[in-house]
This record gives sequence, structure tokens and C-alpha cells, in this order.
Amino acid sequence: MAAEIVNPRTGSGDGSTGHEGGGDPLNSLDSFDPAFALHRGGKMAVQATVPIRDKDDLSLAYTPGVARVCTAIAEQPDLVNDYTWKSSVVAVVTDGTAVLGLGDIGPEASLPVMEGKAILFKQFGGVDAVPIALACTDVDEIIETVVRLAPSFGGVNLEDISAPRCFEIEKRLQERLDIPVFHDDQHGTAVVTLAALRNAAKLTGRGIGDLRAVISGAGAAGVAIAKMLLEAGLGDVAVADRKGIVSADRDDLTPVKRELAELTNKAGLSGSLENALAGADVFIGVSGGTVPEAAVASMAEGAFVFAMANPNPEVHPDVAHKYAAVVATGRSDYPNQINNVLAFPGIFAGALQVRASRITEGMKIAAAEALASVVGDDLAPDYVIPSPFDERVAPAVTAAVAAAARAEGVARR
Amino acid sequence: MAAEIVNPRTGSGDGSTGHEGGGDPLNSLDSFDPAFALHRGGKMAVQATVPIRDKDDLSLAYTPGVARVCTAIAEQPDLVNDYTWKSSVVAVVTDGTAVLGLGDIGPEASLPVMEGKAILFKQFGGVDAVPIALACTDVDEIIETVVRLAPSFGGVNLEDISAPRCFEIEKRLQERLDIPVFHDDQHGTAVVTLAALRNAAKLTGRGIGDLRAVISGAGAAGVAIAKMLLEAGLGDVAVADRKGIVSADRDDLTPVKRELAELTNKAGLSGSLENALAGADVFIGVSGGTVPEAAVASMAEGAFVFAMANPNPEVHPDVAHKYAAVVATGRSDYPNQINNVLAFPGIFAGALQVRASRITEGMKIAAAEALASVVGDDLAPDYVIPSPFDERVAPAVTAAVAAAARAEGVARR
Repeated sequence: MAAEIVNPRTGSGDGSTGHEGGGDPLNSLDSFDPAFALHRGGKMAVQATVPIRDKDDLSLAYTPGVARVCTAIAEQPDLVNDYTWKSSVVAVVTDGTAVLGLGDIGPEASLPVMEGKAILFKQFGGVDAVPIALACTDVDEIIETVVRLAPSFGGVNLEDISAPRCFEIEKRLQERLDIPVFHDDQHGTAVVTLAALRNAAKLTGRGIGDLRAVISGAGAAGVAIAKMLLEAGLGDVAVADRKGIVSADRDDLTPVKRELAELTNKAGLSGSLENALAGADVFIGVSGGTVPEAAVASMAEGAFVFAMANPNPEVHPDVAHKYAAVVATGRSDYPNQINNVLAFPGIFAGALQVRASRITEGMKIAAAEALASVVGDDLAPDYVIPSPFDERVAPAVTAAVAAAARAEGVARR
Repeated sequence: MAAEIVNPRTGSGDGSTGHEGGGDPLNSLDSFDPAFALHRGGKMAVQATVPIRDKDDLSLAYTPGVARVCTAIAEQPDLVNDYTWKSSVVAVVTDGTAVLGLGDIGPEASLPVMEGKAILFKQFGGVDAVPIALACTDVDEIIETVVRLAPSFGGVNLEDISAPRCFEIEKRLQERLDIPVFHDDQHGTAVVTLAALRNAAKLTGRGIGDLRAVISGAGAAGVAIAKMLLEAGLGDVAVADRKGIVSADRDDLTPVKRELAELTNKAGLSGSLENALAGADVFIGVSGGTVPEAAVASMAEGAFVFAMANPNPEVHPDVAHKYAAVVATGRSDYPNQINNVLAFPGIFAGALQVRASRITEGMKIAAAEALASVVGDDLAPDYVIPSPFDERVAPAVTAAVAAAARAEGVARR
């Protein structure tokens, strides 16, 4: 109907709008960089899934028919999950403080990333998602705001919120809400890393209990990866921040890093990242910066190097291959890309499918195992993790997460 | 992709989910009432408007390409309107306190109405809209929450928030935000009422300056209609609440009604609604309740009766037709339906098209005039307002509102 006649995005149908002319500076931006041309008008839309062709349709989808559905939900609140899109829609929430590698660029500038995330949810997991970029950065304000929004959503995906605030926000939100709250920068990355690590261990005939890992970066991803690897049974994990190994003897640790110092580093290492790498089996980079080649050379025989910084890996793959048995990066133009999109769509799809109240450690580990298992018999040094475009991934993760939710008693259907 | 394999709404692809079985009580609900069957799984979805077929697509829509767009917006904030869906998406915000005629049923139970509203925005105006039902009812909390959400949206449609809180919320939000804030229960109703009234006056050869109107109901709709009719030049307007005519001599008035007493009722009427109706030219019902036939009979020759309560008009159309020259209701099964969907999609489409900072009185009056003009030469007692399914409506309202925004200096493109 009118949607075909008037497009509020482009102003088509109204020749007098300003931005469409030939000499427009935006059009030059669009022709200069295909990313701008693609983003013009945004990357997503809403659509009706029911017909509104005539007054009979209208009387069911809207008044008076809708009133009966509202009344039923008021009497039996669970029905909101059956008769609205609540149980299929996730809020992608950010405050714009840690967007990609760009830092604190604010909510408006973060929107293209949140929209991108939303369409990846849809494309890869069949999950509806709505970008919510907040004009506040105070922890209490963010928490209150998300709690107030929660009736409209089946889950909350926190995104690009700076550490250590992201830890407290996620924890307190999950305590207050009975829908899944998931900080993808932490757990999505951790799930995919664990999957790659499991397959690398399998490929080289080792148990993960025999492995010692060193993580460069103690932000959202580094902390979550460390915890998850320990949960999954890794032998030992040390984490280094800019000042060196996070260890109990340091007096400059935030509360989150103090907890990390207690959980990790059984070997009692201290000093620089390079110290920790000597003899280590696994390097996991989620920090940026560069690791000297000598430090990579000092790792144990048959090491794994997962250098995930984008666009510049902490260890260049050509260097890593000289010393390591398995090399992974965060880049799509090298093999073994550690990409969160392998995890979050299926994790939420599985959690929503069974109306899980939260996403447990067990559900995340099940996701990692499902993801690793997709590789199957094709396992090879250049193939420890599937492609984001492998159509087997999301269904496998979804089913594993749903089953784990049932096993862990957090499923509600 | 996975969307076809796993549907988190219905759980299809997982035979063990609980709600799909043959003996399910929900399935009986669905077969008992087509409104439930239609609402199953909700009425809306999100869709990507750009392709994500391969890693090249992904590198433009997401990292690394998206980072360039984010950086550009961080440097030039206005670009958020060109390169995200912000300028085409409206938040449909409620607290669930005054939902249809059902009253305070809470945020979850209000969601079917908000989804309905969202798909009407899309269907009739090409405007994307997202239901936001809030878990708070405090005026300050609602305002703070919407201000924090605002970076993600091009406009805010307030919906089903109880009076008098709705007046303060709208006013203070519009003061704080530079995007349109519009309480449809007030202004949408007022715009459509004014359009019908203009055509009724034209049909009967009268100027609206000669008309005296009586409004039954001093809630959101009644207050907004009174103000708009005066703005449009109506001769006189009196408003009655449950205790009678809102007049300066009453000592039980809220601040909003005190203001109304000053603006309206030039004739200085007091006492009951029936008193005011004697000799009146126009009756506008937005209250429920029933007006006695004798009071309708006491109105001036050639009166207009707009009895908009749903499902039971204040004056039954059969009764109204005995005395009135033009009769309108809120029901789709009688002629002349005063339906907000005639106004809000085009009003927001026009405002978004020119990136208006607010929706002014002039824009609303332009919307009413455009709506009235669609009827054109077909004007007749049973046709003073077009059908919601008349495809000329939304483009006419959109163009008129965009032009008025430019004329009033609130357009930004």
C-alpha cells in the first residue's frame, strides 16, 4: 500500500527532498566506499507477518479482536510468549562505549554495528533483533533502563559495553530478569574459541586438560575466555593485560582482575606476557598489539596460536605458521576465522526455543561442542572451525543449546 | 538460511516442544477464536534489507566495513539518519495503563496492541515501528527511559498511557528530544475528528467558525480534540467529564482541566452534558456511556453526531440519524469511521521524510485538511471521511505534513 508510494528513508516520491541530488556530498561518499552505499537508509526493516487487507483483517489484528488477546495475557501472563513476538525478539543493547576497536564513539555512531548484529541474528538464527543504543553510560541507569524494556523482549544481547562495567551490568541484569542476558563480546567469543581449541586438541591428539594457555587481553573477551576454558577443563590459563600477567602478587588489579588472578595462573607465573608464553601450548590474542616472534618461537612444540585482533592479528599468520601446529585469526581472509556469528544466533535461537530463563555455562559449553562437531571428519590444521556460512552451524548450536537448557532445568517449554 | 530450519516462535524443527501437540489447550484457544490463531507467534518480524550471502557481503554490512560508517557518524552525527534505519523507525511506547477500553492491564498484556500499531505504521505509512512496553509507570521514570532510548529512533509514538500522566509525559519528552513525540490517543483522534468535521461543515454549507461543539470525555482524546478544534477556528467548544461541563466555576478540576476550562466554553455553560447539548451543533463522544435520546433531539437543526466509543457508541447510529445531518462512529461496520489509522502513519511518514524535530499544530491541521480533501467531490452524509483502506490517504497526509513541517521551520531536510 502506501509503503510503495512513500519511502521515508529516501524521500522518494518527493522530488524536493535535499539529499538525493546529483551534487550531493553523501552521494560522493557512497560512490567512494561501497560500505556507505550499502548502509544508505539502514540495513533492516520491520514487516507484518499477518495480512491487513481489509476491515475483517483489521478487526482481528487490531481492535476489537486484539482486546481478547490482551485480556487473555492479563489473566495468564505466560501467554505473552505465545501470542506476541516477545519470545522471538532480542534487544541488542549498547551504550556505545567500546564499539569494535573504535572505543567510546557514543550511541548514534554505534548504531550501524547494532543493526549489523540484528540482521546477523535474523540471517543466521532466524531470531528477530532490535538495536537499542542508549544515551546513558552509568551502570545503574543502564540496568534500570534494560529492566524497564524487558517486558517487550525475549532476551537481551549486550554489545560493545566497555569493561569492567560490562561484567557488573550483565550480572545484575541477569539477577533481575527472567529472560536470557548475554554479553556477546564475552561469551560469544569464548564459545567459538573453545570450539576451535577442542578441535585443535583433537587434531593433535591431546586432551585439553594437558594444555596451558596464555591469553593476551583482560577485557570482556579475555576474562570470559579464561573462565570458560577453565570451566571446560583446560590445564592452566594465564591472562596478561598491558602491565603483564594477572597474578595475585600485583597490587594494581581491579576487582574483576583480582578474581581472575585467583581463578587462573595455577603455575604462579608473573611478569611479562613473553615470560608466560615460554613453553605455553596455546596463545589467545584478544588485545591488539604485537607479540614478538621470539616469544612465539619459545612456545611448546605443536602450539596453537589464535591471534584474534582485527584488522591486525597479534601474531601475523605467516609468522605463526613457522612455529605453531594450528593458527586461527579473527579475519575472514585467512582460514580458521574465530567469528562470534558462529555462536550468538544459535545460542539465542536455542534459548528462545525452550524459553530459557538464562544462558548457563552448560549451555555455552554445549554450543562450543556442537560448533566443533560440525567440522567432523574434515578436521585439518586449516579447518578447526566451520565457516560462518556453513548452514549446518546454527541448527547444530540451536539444538545443543535447547537440549542443554532442558538438562540444566532453565527451560520453560 | 537457518531461519528456514529453526523457528524460535513455533519451535518447529523440534518435535519435543510442549505447545504444539494436538491436545494443547492453546490450540483449542486458537480454534475457538480466530483472533488467537492470528496472533499465534506474534504479528511482526525484522528483516534484513541488505544481502549477507558471503564473506564479502559480511565485510561490508559488518566488520570491517561497518567501522568506516561508524567513524563517519562519530565525526558528523547527522549522518546517523542517512546510514542507519534511525530516520525511518518509530518507538511505539506504552506503560500499559490505559489499553483500549481495558484500562491498566500492564506492559505484557498491552503488547498485542503495540504490535498491531507497529504493523499499521508499516502497512499504511511505510514506517518501521518497534513495540516498547515499559515496566514502569512513574512519569519521571518513563521520561528518562524514553530519553535514553531516543538515539535509536527517529520518532516516539506514545500509546495507551493514562491521563493526565500522558499530557505531562508528552510535553516534557518533546522538550527534551529533537525528534517527534506524538501521543496518538490525543492527536491522532483529534486530526481525524477535525477532518470529518470540516467535511461535515462543507457538506451542510456552514463555516466551522459558526459551530458550537460539545465533547463528552476529558481524557487524552477529549482534551486534544477540544484544543485542536479551537486551533482550527471552531466557534465554541465545551467539554464534559463525568461530573458535567468543565467550567471555571468548578473547584474539583485537575490542572489540565483547569487549563481546558480557560480555553473552552466561551458560552459559559455549566451543569450537565445534556445542558450543553441543547442547541449545540456538534456532539463528539470519546467517553463511553450513553447520551439520552432527548438530549440528542435537543441539538440544533442539521447537527453532527460523532459517537466514537467502541464497541458501544454514546449514541446509537440509528438514534443519531433521527436528528443529525451527519453521523460518525468509531466502528468499522458503520459508515464514517473515525479511525486513527487514517492519520498516524502519514503524519509520522511526513515528519520522518523531512526529519522534522517535532510535530506542530500546523502539521496536524495540515494532516486533517489533507485527509478531508481525499473525500473530494464524493462528499455525502455517509462519506465525510475516507476508508482506512483508501490508498490515497497516506500519501496525501504524508505530503501535507512534510510541506507543513517545511513551512513551519521544523524540517531538517
